[in-house]
Formats: sequence, C-alpha cells, structure tokens
Amino acid sequence: MTIRGSESPRMSRRHRVGILGGGQLARMMALAGLPLGLQFKVLDPATDACAGECTPLVNAAFDDAAALQALAGEVDVVTFDFENVPADSARALASKVPVYPAPDALAVAQDRLSEKTLFRELGIPVPAFAAIDSREGLERALDEVGVPCILKTRRLGYDGKGQFRIRSRADADAAWEALGAQAPRVGLILEAFVPFDGEVSVVAVRGRDGEFRAWPLTANWHVDGVLSASLAPAPVPARVQETALGYARLLAEKLGYVGVFALELFRRGDQLLANEMAPRVHNSGHWTIEGAETSQFENHLRAVLGLPLGSTAMRGHACMLNWIGEMPDAAAVLGEAGGHWHDYGKEPRDGRKVGHATFRADSAPALADALESAGASLGRSGQVDPVVAVLRG
Amino acid sequence: MTIRGSESPRMSRRHRVGILGGGQLARMMALAGLPLGLQFKVLDPATDACAGECTPLVNAAFDDAAALQALAGEVDVVTFDFENVPADSARALASKVPVYPAPDALAVAQDRLSEKTLFRELGIPVPAFAAIDSREGLERALDEVGVPCILKTRRLGYDGKGQFRIRSRADADAAWEALGAQAPRVGLILEAFVPFDGEVSVVAVRGRDGEFRAWPLTANWHVDGVLSASLAPAPVPARVQETALGYARLLAEKLGYVGVFALELFRRGDQLLANEMAPRVHNSGHWTIEGAETSQFENHLRAVLGLPLGSTAMRGHACMLNWIGEMPDAAAVLGEAGGHWHDYGKEPRDGRKVGHATFRADSAPALADALESAGASLGRSGQVDPVVAVLRG
Repeated sequence: MTIRGSESPRMSRRHRVGILGGGQLARMMALAGLPLGLQFKVLDPATDACAGECTPLVNAAFDDAAALQALAGEVDVVTFDFENVPADSARALASKVPVYPAPDALAVAQDRLSEKTLFRELGIPVPAFAAIDSREGLERALDEVGVPCILKTRRLGYDGKGQFRIRSRADADAAWEALGAQAPRVGLILEAFVPFDGEVSVVAVRGRDGEFRAWPLTANWHVDGVLSASLAPAPVPARVQETALGYARLLAEKLGYVGVFALELFRRGDQLLANEMAPRVHNSGHWTIEGAETSQFENHLRAVLGLPLGSTAMRGHACMLNWIGEMPDAAAVLGEAGGHWHDYGKEPRDGRKVGHATFRADSAPALADALESAGASLGRSGQVDPVVAVLRG
Repeated sequence: MTIRGSESPRMSRRHRVGILGGGQLARMMALAGLPLGLQFKVLDPATDACAGECTPLVNAAFDDAAALQALAGEVDVVTFDFENVPADSARALASKVPVYPAPDALAVAQDRLSEKTLFRELGIPVPAFAAIDSREGLERALDEVGVPCILKTRRLGYDGKGQFRIRSRADADAAWEALGAQAPRVGLILEAFVPFDGEVSVVAVRGRDGEFRAWPLTANWHVDGVLSASLAPAPVPARVQETALGYARLLAEKLGYVGVFALELFRRGDQLLANEMAPRVHNSGHWTIEGAETSQFENHLRAVLGLPLGSTAMRGHACMLNWIGEMPDAAAVLGEAGGHWHDYGKEPRDGRKVGHATFRADSAPALADALESAGASLGRSGQVDPVVAVLRG
C-alpha cells in the first residue's frame, strides 16, 4: 500500500505486518489485509498453524529471542492473534519495532486482577472481587465476595479453563484442590457470580491518532464457557448501548490502546457489569466481516498501521454461530440467503474452534427465519433457538 | 469444506481447486475461497504472479503437458483466471478432472466470430459484423458493414489490443497494415462501430445444476479501451436490465455454462447490442466484493464446486475505480466512509491493472459525495466525474 498522507512518509514499498500467533484470528487478519496490499509474517510454534495457509509462517516459540529479533527486522509493525504472548517477548519486540497493542496494555489484560482494578478505577461497574494468594486468603475472600462465586487464575485463563465455580462455602476445599497449586505462579482471584440476563460485548477500535470507533453492541451466548452465538445489534435499549460504548472508550483512552479490542459485560436489566477485556480482535466480532462496512480485522490493521479507520456501521442484522470440534454441513448454510461460511482449515478436535458461520439479513424477522431454517437443517436448533427467541422478542 | 448434501458424497476432506492463471482474478478467488475451506493450486508461467502471495503457485507454461497432468492429479476441479488458455490445454485437463467453464464454452468466447454468430443465433442483437481472411475480404466486409467500423483479431484480443478503428474507407490500407499479418493465424473480424450512450455489463453465474443468478446490471466507463469505472446498479429502466439479464441467461443455457461470466453490451437509449462475453469473473464485477451479499469470486467457486449459489442481492450503491499503471494514495480512499481498497501486490507498469477501489453507500447521492471527495483528494476528478454526473442525473 502506498501512503502519501500528510502524517506518513512518502514511500512506495508495501507495509509489512508481523503477527504473533497463527490461529484463525491471524488467518482472518491476513485475508483482510491482503487486499490492502499488506505483507504478513506470522510466528507460531505449530507447524500446522492455520494462518500459514495464506501467509508466510515462521515456526518458533513465542519466547524464542532470536526468532523475535529476526521478525522485528522484517516487519514495520507487530501485533497479536492472542493475548497470552509472554510480556517479555512483547517488550523485547517493542524495543525494536512498533508493537500494537502496546505491551503495557497487553499486560493489564493478561491479569484479571489488574484488569478489574482498572475497571473499578475508571468507574466501570464490576462484580465484587478479591485477590487470593493462600488457602486462608480464600476464606477471607469468601467473606468479602460471598457465594455463589468463581475462583479463577489471574493469568492465562482462556475460554473457561482455569476456573472453578463455588456454589456454597462447602465447595471451597474442592476449589482450592483444583486451582490452589497455581496460586504462586499465576495468582488467583475470586469473583462474585452475578446472575445475569445476558452477556454483551463491545468490539471497538482505537487508532494511533486516538480516534475511537465501536461496532454496535453484540449479544453473546456461551456454552460450557465457550462462545456459541453472537447477535448484532444486541436487542437492548439505546442507553444501554451508549453506556457500554462509553465504558469501552474510557478503557481504550486510559490504556492509550491502539487496535481492536473487546469488552465483555454482563447485563442485568439495564445494568452492566464488566467481565473482562480481550486486547485483540474477538470472536464476538466475527460477524463484522459480512455485517459491517469494515470488519474488525481490517480496522485492526488500519489502526496498527496508522491508516484512517473504516466505518463501523452495520449492514442490517447479523448472527454468528461458532463451530466447535468439527465443521457441520456447509450446504445448509450456503443454501440460505445471507449465509456465509468460514472454515479455518483446522483439524477437528474436541473443544477446538474450527470455524463459524454468519447469517446476515436486512431485518430481524428475516434473520430469525434464516437461523431457524439452517438450525433445523444442521440438527443444531439448540444453538440457534436462544437467538431466534430474542429476535422474535 | 465438508459437504453432506444429497447430491454430494459424504466426505471430510477439503475441496481442492486448480486455477490456470495467477493474476488478480485468481488472487481474489483465493481470498474468497479460503474462508470456504478450499485449497488452491495456481498455475502461471510468471514467478511473481500475484496470486502466489496467498496460495501455492506452480510455475509452468499453460501448454506444459506434464505440469497440467500433475495439476489434474492434485485438485478436484480446474478453472481459469483468464480466457486465453490454449483450448488444447483445457481439453487435456478436462479428460482427467472436471473443468469449468467447459472447454467448448471457453472456445466460443475465445473467438469473436463464433461468439457473435452465437449471439445472432440466440436472437441477441449485435452490431453488423463480417469475417475476413484477406485484403480483398476486407473490401467486401466494408461494403457489408459500412463505416465507421473496427477491424479486430478474432482471437487473443484483450483490453483494446489487436484492434484498429476505421473511420473512412481511406483507412483500410492502414488497418490491413496493422493487423493483416495476423489474419492467417488468429483470423480477423470487421465490426460496425455503434455510436452508443453507454456500456453496460451483466455479471452472472450458473451452477452445475443449471441454477442461474445475475447481479444487478453494471454501467461501465472505459478509457483507451481499458475499464476505468463501474457503477451498480446501472441507472437504466427496469426493462433494460431485464432484457440484458435475459440475454445473459439465454447465452449461459445455450452454452451449458458453469461459473461466473460477463456479457458486455452497448446501450443506445433503451436498445442493447451485445459486444462480447468474458468466460470468467470480470473486472466489472469487482464491486460485488463489498456491494453484494455474495461476491462474484465466491459464487464462481460455489458454482464450479456444485455448491449452492449465494444471493446476488446488492447492498446499496457501489462504484469501482480501476487503478492502472500504479497505485494512488490509499488514505484518500480509506478516509471515505464506504471506501474499500484493493492492491493486487503487483509491480507498477504502464497500462497494467494494479488495483482498484470500491465505494459503497446506501444512496446514490451519498455515493456521489464520496466519489467527488475521493476524486478531488486523489487528483483524479476526471475518472470519477462521468460517474458522478450519472448519479446526480
């Protein structure tokens, strides 16, 4: 891409982007960035990392100093396809090449305690929480937070792993048994379990110049802690969306964040409580590929390269269904008007995100019809029913 | 992609698509097909063929029998990114693996005389034309067709090359001087020059099962015989669009065509005259990437693989601008809401198609505003003005 804007030097060579992590998020970033003329280099320890199918892949560990140094010399900017890159690796890279989001923002999002403390500082409501470093600390935290609650690792938690639900104080021993050993290494946090009406997320982007844009609020459904379906726009009152987007903006500005991120929130009536932040493109934003003027993947790249951000306006209504473990029958989705298919090219494996489908329609009833029809064809009515119920509202 | 439809065998391995030609059309096909889980192999003599940036590239001549045989063994279907693949190569492949569009359809479209004869047979109006095989034949043809007219090679014509415009009979010698030597090898045809109000194209797709779909009629502007801008929907009365789409359908059904093709027509008031057919995804359909529910690239792949065709419904209004020779400044396009950028990753070269931009808007006036603004920023008002005039019309 040739950039001759006033803030960019005149240059004719193409932008080169390094990505740590070569999973489906890197793959979808590459597919969004190739039309922009970007050149990619992806670093991942797995030889079959699925981004490697459409972009050069370097096989190395995320803490391989020599590989990181080589990558830094070959690209103009580095970004991430997941948030658990070692902070030292991110900082080593940042000493040689621009890295977005910045390692400090990444560090906050890697630690549930730092993250929740920051939410509280910014006046973003959060469920009660307490840090824990011992079995006795768990008892004190239970006094403070109450039951039901969830014991979680502070770091490296991902998709429901590293969590233990405490229904009554009698569960405390079992919880400590499950996670206590991790306390010294990654820390633990106890979070109040909040009965909620629904989960929503803000997917937003902030540019190098501070420009902030958000896609419409997305409603999410999880099964066993893993995202199952997302619906945009979330069927909530405008004031709820405004509040959520305001929280995301506060957070992005406080962190000096550059790139796309997601803020996940619990909704109880019109009240919102922040759950966590993901400092990257996010599964609940996959619908933006077909459902928005500019996808989260393209806007993330525009942001980290200092290019103008694209419009986040929606095109109608969109619902994304995640495919976990194995791909279902494509024809049932492709046969629906507005049905779009995304196969990440990954081997089937229990619990693995292997693809998704997005359904786009001009109206909520038309979207509900398409979902019902595809759900029946796929034998997956259970996955679409909660979304259809909301759309039929 | 796992297909378990009633017409497809149950299988878990992914579809593999071979493409002859590795230019921007193959590149955009790959970018559309990777989300479908397709695996590609592209054959092109050029080591820097731009599709090679996101898909495996085999460097071989299009008539390299060994390379073609190897390709046939490695893919489930073969298609093309340009129409001038040697007919023998296409037929050799077709004896080993399904090839779409079929070599016979390709052969018709490779020969202006066969093509125009077919149009006439189908009742699709065409400008007067006559075949020529000698200098004397040119005189007879001039008697029949009249002046002004255009002398063209029957085969291998591409983007205005191999054509000579005859304004009066005094130009006949110069025309023969320019093209006569090609008469024995590729044949010549004389076509009446039709004064027209505009050029339009139908981009359409036909599936293996005969299902036919067309995108809305597109209006096109050429400069020096090369496409400069396309606007969809074309601002013509509904009956003109219906007539054009009807012609395309007749043609596709007669040829038993499978895949995407374009039918280019001259428009004079409400009258349409067929110019030529391109048996492939087409430059005048690039706007479908952002402007339609399903792009021409995805629907071409769906068609050649026997998958359900996607909706060709438009999303608002779209205009594509071609970048010829070198890429202009991306920021001027990315800064407009609905501005989308496509850099093919090709080296700059005079007359070469190196990229395009598509502007999408919900209304014609909004599209005109975006085009005017970007045209001014780019110093390319001349390219956008004719489109803006029609949109404001």
